[in-house]
Amino acid sequence: MTHMLEDAALDQLFRAARTHNGFTDRPVDPDLLRQIHDLVRWGPTSANCSPLRTVFLTTPAAKERLRPALSAGNLDKTMAAPVTALLAYDSRFADHLPRLFPHTDARPWFAAPAVAQETAFRNATLQAGYFILAARAVGLDCGPMSGFNPELVNAEFFPDGRYKINFLCNLGYGDPAALFARSPRFDFEDVCEII
Amino acid sequence: MTHMLEDAALDQLFRAARTHNGFTDRPVDPDLLRQIHDLVRWGPTSANCSPLRTVFLTTPAAKERLRPALSAGNLDKTMAAPVTALLAYDSRFADHLPRLFPHTDARPWFAAPAVAQETAFRNATLQAGYFILAARAVGLDCGPMSGFNPELVNAEFFPDGRYKINFLCNLGYGDPAALFARSPRFDFEDVCEII
Repeated sequence: MTHMLEDAALDQLFRAARTHNGFTDRPVDPDLLRQIHDLVRWGPTSANCSPLRTVFLTTPAAKERLRPALSAGNLDKTMAAPVTALLAYDSRFADHLPRLFPHTDARPWFAAPAVAQETAFRNATLQAGYFILAARAVGLDCGPMSGFNPELVNAEFFPDGRYKINFLCNLGYGDPAALFARSPRFDFEDVCEII
Repeated sequence: MTHMLEDAALDQLFRAARTHNGFTDRPVDPDLLRQIHDLVRWGPTSANCSPLRTVFLTTPAAKERLRPALSAGNLDKTMAAPVTALLAYDSRFADHLPRLFPHTDARPWFAAPAVAQETAFRNATLQAGYFILAARAVGLDCGPMSGFNPELVNAEFFPDGRYKINFLCNLGYGDPAALFARSPRFDFEDVCEII
């Protein structure tokens, strides 16, 4: 049976974790990127559709391909981060359903283009949420960003049009000196109701 | 400094956790719902916009209001679950930015309706991912679902049109006897690339 995680784990995942803008020089072991996937893949998605697709940029040459797409405020910190993850989704995720959901043919459920698009975006974003917490769970810090030109990213990294960028996430070991002050959060009564 | 969480925590959050269809009779302490929020609220969102809005249905009367919107396959299990969370988003999340992002006026960033809609959906879904893992972190089991009529849910629970349903999540203590066989997951090389 499960129980509440200990405070140190809750702090690492949620309460003490911060969005980092600067990272130390400590490199990121590529095995940790595999361990993130080994956690994320177990998270729930609609009909196990698992539409998240991830490209980890780990070299200066790979980072240079991203440079023209970055917003001014995200440029320097992203070029300096040890790893930048492109968190994308597969617009044709349903092609994999016979493998991922073998007990029935779920492909017709997502045949309508608008349903497929919404399902891909919703479920890849859910998986991106799992990704951020999985990265923290393996001891990394995250810097997720939506400030970039998605058309340029898609043209450069996904030119056949099947995968679509959702957002970016820098990874590394955060430099506390580069943190901004923490912004206020909602109280329970502001955004939750029990009926 | 952070480090990798222990195996028991990784199992509880990701590897051993399952989507539950049936729950035991053990009630859910309402304080746990508050503790879920106390974790979720710290997760990152664009400009701290925090668009997730949650309604916890905990009574038979509240559940009955949801009944007409449920798909046949989700009806009985949802009516029987101790708690069903409506995970919604605030289409006018930007109204709260002066409170949530006080160091600058971020409202113009989201002034275009298409940008506001995409930002609300993306970030509330990210928070919904945090929600699922936070529920597991406090010892609960989850049964997330997209099989329902969103128009009916919005008309019944959010009639003024400001909040929009994203998906539903049953909560409780899972009954292992009601689990389906686990579906296959992607390997790293199937969906990830390091460049």
